[in-house]
Amino acid sequence: MNTLDKNVAELQKLTLGAYGKDFLLTWEKTDDEIRALMLVAECFYQMHKDRRPFRVFDTGLAVSIFRDKSTRTRFSFASAVNALGLGLSELDEEKSQVSHGETVRETANMISFMTEVIGIRDDMYLGEGNAYMREVAQAVQEGFEKGVLHQRPTIVNLQCDIDHPTQASADLLHLKNRFGSLENLRGKKLAMTWAYSPSYGKPLSVPQGIIGLMTRFGMDVSLAYPEGYGLIPDVVQTAGQNSRKSGGKFEVVSSMEEAFRGADVVYPKSWAPYDVMLKRTPLLKKGDKEGLKQLEKECLANNARYKSWECDEAKMKLTKGGNALYMHCLPADISNVSCSQGEVSKGVFEKYRLATYEEASYKPFIIAAMIFLSRVKDSPGLMKKLAAGAAR
Amino acid sequence: MNTLDKNVAELQKLTLGAYGKDFLLTWEKTDDEIRALMLVAECFYQMHKDRRPFRVFDTGLAVSIFRDKSTRTRFSFASAVNALGLGLSELDEEKSQVSHGETVRETANMISFMTEVIGIRDDMYLGEGNAYMREVAQAVQEGFEKGVLHQRPTIVNLQCDIDHPTQASADLLHLKNRFGSLENLRGKKLAMTWAYSPSYGKPLSVPQGIIGLMTRFGMDVSLAYPEGYGLIPDVVQTAGQNSRKSGGKFEVVSSMEEAFRGADVVYPKSWAPYDVMLKRTPLLKKGDKEGLKQLEKECLANNARYKSWECDEAKMKLTKGGNALYMHCLPADISNVSCSQGEVSKGVFEKYRLATYEEASYKPFIIAAMIFLSRVKDSPGLMKKLAAGAAR
Amino acid sequence: MNTLDKNVAELQKLTLGAYGKDFLLTWEKTDDEIRALMLVAECFYQMHKDRRPFRVFDTGLAVSIFRDKSTRTRFSFASAVNALGLGLSELDEEKSQVSHGETVRETANMISFMTEVIGIRDDMYLGEGNAYMREVAQAVQEGFEKGVLHQRPTIVNLQCDIDHPTQASADLLHLKNRFGSLENLRGKKLAMTWAYSPSYGKPLSVPQGIIGLMTRFGMDVSLAYPEGYGLIPDVVQTAGQNSRKSGGKFEVVSSMEEAFRGADVVYPKSWAPYDVMLKRTPLLKKGDKEGLKQLEKECLANNARYKSWECDEAKMKLTKGGNALYMHCLPADISNVSCSQGEVSKGVFEKYRLATYEEASYKPFIIAAMIFLSRVKDSPGLMKKLAAGAAR
Repeated sequence: MNTLDKNVAELQKLTLGAYGKDFLLTWEKTDDEIRALMLVAECFYQMHKDRRPFRVFDTGLAVSIFRDKSTRTRFSFASAVNALGLGLSELDEEKSQVSHGETVRETANMISFMTEVIGIRDDMYLGEGNAYMREVAQAVQEGFEKGVLHQRPTIVNLQCDIDHPTQASADLLHLKNRFGSLENLRGKKLAMTWAYSPSYGKPLSVPQGIIGLMTRFGMDVSLAYPEGYGLIPDVVQTAGQNSRKSGGKFEVVSSMEEAFRGADVVYPKSWAPYDVMLKRTPLLKKGDKEGLKQLEKECLANNARYKSWECDEAKMKLTKGGNALYMHCLPADISNVSCSQGEVSKGVFEKYRLATYEEASYKPFIIAAMIFLSRVKDSPGLMKKLAAGAAR
Repeated sequence: MNTLDKNVAELQKLTLGAYGKDFLLTWEKTDDEIRALMLVAECFYQMHKDRRPFRVFDTGLAVSIFRDKSTRTRFSFASAVNALGLGLSELDEEKSQVSHGETVRETANMISFMTEVIGIRDDMYLGEGNAYMREVAQAVQEGFEKGVLHQRPTIVNLQCDIDHPTQASADLLHLKNRFGSLENLRGKKLAMTWAYSPSYGKPLSVPQGIIGLMTRFGMDVSLAYPEGYGLIPDVVQTAGQNSRKSGGKFEVVSSMEEAFRGADVVYPKSWAPYDVMLKRTPLLKKGDKEGLKQLEKECLANNARYKSWECDEAKMKLTKGGNALYMHCLPADISNVSCSQGEVSKGVFEKYRLATYEEASYKPFIIAAMIFLSRVKDSPGLMKKLAAGAAR
Repeated sequence: MNTLDKNVAELQKLTLGAYGKDFLLTWEKTDDEIRALMLVAECFYQMHKDRRPFRVFDTGLAVSIFRDKSTRTRFSFASAVNALGLGLSELDEEKSQVSHGETVRETANMISFMTEVIGIRDDMYLGEGNAYMREVAQAVQEGFEKGVLHQRPTIVNLQCDIDHPTQASADLLHLKNRFGSLENLRGKKLAMTWAYSPSYGKPLSVPQGIIGLMTRFGMDVSLAYPEGYGLIPDVVQTAGQNSRKSGGKFEVVSSMEEAFRGADVVYPKSWAPYDVMLKRTPLLKKGDKEGLKQLEKECLANNARYKSWECDEAKMKLTKGGNALYMHCLPADISNVSCSQGEVSKGVFEKYRLATYEEASYKPFIIAAMIFLSRVKDSPGLMKKLAAGAAR
């Protein structure tokens, strides 16, 4: 039995409740649903490698709303919906009537008459991004229930203030492949640590997504950051609960070195201080440029106190066999490449550069899998047909 | 016989001349062509509701040119062309050589080599939008006749200075469904009235489109506006002629109350004064910002004299049974929601909110029907096959 | 045997090495590969004329990167990829993380996970555009070899600082059709001459592409420009070598009149002086607006000395029978139409206007052919099936 057939067979055994559901936070999904996500993504990955199409829609629209810059996720979403057979329309809020004072409730329905999926990135405003996605979800739910929409589009979180589920899931698939199985992750130590960056205002969603998901499968997750750089308390609590439930470990430490010690995997990545992000939201909303400039200045000055939080060769030596897997959501701030001093030394990054590309390569398949599981009623059945080359 | 089959059967009986023709003004179409438009749109609507694709093209391009903001129409066009199997390319005049002084005649051909349909919104300049569409149409006609183009793309008016045919047609379909048939519209009173808005420069095309189309089917159309807010005289004359021909009524009155009295349907919607729109065109063309600011100031001051033109609960009481159908092309200026005082009170809008979404939901299917009728030679025959699930 | 079958039969006889290769410069392709490009483009052109689809992909992405304005090439690329069955995603560098200091090497891989072809226009910087394309090519090659990419996308040059191969190839196809065959081009005189324009900074890639390609098939190519307006010396040398190899002629002369004398084909087109383009690159990179303004002023002053380099009726009289074929990549600077004085008189342009549209009409088919030859292993075999209506 080849890998594809094996994955299809495993998929049949899971209890799935993803049909018709949005993908907003990984911790709203059951373990079986996360396992299914991995299996479906792997099937698509394998079919694509074999140059076999896995189109499931004849026509239909996918809408993306990017309220922040994006390359990887933008192209991953574009690739995923194209592979499934959907056409992509990007909602450019500048070119729409949104700027005419239209409500979210209304816009959500107006773009959804023939839409199967809406992907949203809204990661700038702490306390707002995920809430916006839920507002869109509620609006299309109402439209569907009241008969305005023939189908209720699935909302996929392409990064919010709380979670970055397409990234965390692609990262989990990367770990699954590197270590052989989800089971093999049990007891492996992952260091999710803050790192210095000369830039400002990076969202908290990647570290939150990582600790929220990797604690699900028995990993030993060590979160490290300098004082003042804590994450949303609720998410940290969720990570702790996940860890206890899965029989793993979860700790918060205060140095990169401590987190790296004996780690199998390291994920050094900058983010803005929680308090700064809290202050930033009202300033951004008011459009207070002077206030934002002042806040940025303070934040950068604060960051500069922690320039030693760089993932370099010396710190890598502390990891298991000096040889931990380095991960990053990209683009990384690489010392002497994209900045004078940053999150990672040139040597360490270059050693793992292609591994980070591989890590990123799973995202299109993860997104396709999220859509597939939500839109296809009998997803294991259809996957079996696709794998047998007999669908459509 | 289900509704789909009934509509298909009705379609076979009509005399159609839409093949190969543009859709620029509803009053250039025969009654049978309007009836066919409704029937085809309803067939597509029903097939979509049944989750059945109605793709008719294997490949091919649809081009959109938006010279003004748009959400509903933009996504309706995107949805329609996707459903028919076409790929969408938007002409962004900023990114093209149009800004290098290229002629309309040339650009029109350059974007049309493999293009089936060109959708255009050009509603800012009174006296220019529709003319621009005809210039594009003439250019591709020449290209086709001279053998430069293998096919002559259909031009679809996505709102101009004179008409907004996709909106008016979707509105007619909404009325057809609400009242049961086009025949049932006979003698029903529709109040197309101006309403107060704190914004400026709204096109005249919606009210013009409504009076131009709804007078075709024996409705009793009452147009109301304050002094100075008249519409293009030619269009008003056309509405009068339509009305006489169809055995309906058409009147112009000077208060919202008068129009609302006994109405079955009300359409309160702001537009700019005709004279202001006339003055605005040369200012926009010259890029005279100071002049535009001055004109806006005058216009807003003038608007402010008519703040009582709000569709509120009291005025709705004047309508048939106090219960007329409220319509709007969206987004509406809703008092205490999107502005402090606007076209409609919060209470009235909220009561009809989902009805306005339903109204909007017909537009993708109307646009798909316009394209289908223009591009498919034997459209009734192909529709019969599609309905039988046997096309392609 | 109809033309389509004849072309398919001819295609079987050629020795092809285009599979898996980028299309960056025409002179990197063998004569057989250029012949195949013409034949495949003609087959697609004929099938499109017959309203027969030639889709070869079920799904898959095409990415375009436009670092300069474009209408013709943008829509040609969009049309070509759509016709082949690919979805188009444009990389907008403003909306991506490119502006976050990401490396070309990284971005190239990030947009390529499910991408079949990347079309790039980068024509502003002498010494940089083609180099950038090669950097992208090298990056995806590495990604493919290291297993990050399942397929290695083809890079298609949509105009760089050195060549404009989609333009030159469409031009060659135009000539082939006008003169009956590539063989018939032998001995025909083509005048590629500079012409006056009131604008500044036009790339050298069109004249370079023309002299680099048209010298391949035995034409008598005469290049004319005022002092200081020479092209990249390497390209001129390549043209000379091509010419000697193909048994044609290649000369450089210093007046439009001399080049036009006895010409069968004239291609009067403005470009910036080589020295100016050399100085412009570092100024553009530094964002030195003052320096660029100064350089523009000098350049325009210099241009103005050569206002007599206009293709007018008098000069056309010097050509073979006074009746040479006028060519232009469009948009042309037409005297008294798009500017007060430009590259061509209104009368001459109007006479050949539709011929220039026809010239442009080949580009979508050329681009589709470039992609087809690079992505399809047995391209003659698949073309035979497509022509027989039996593919997919």
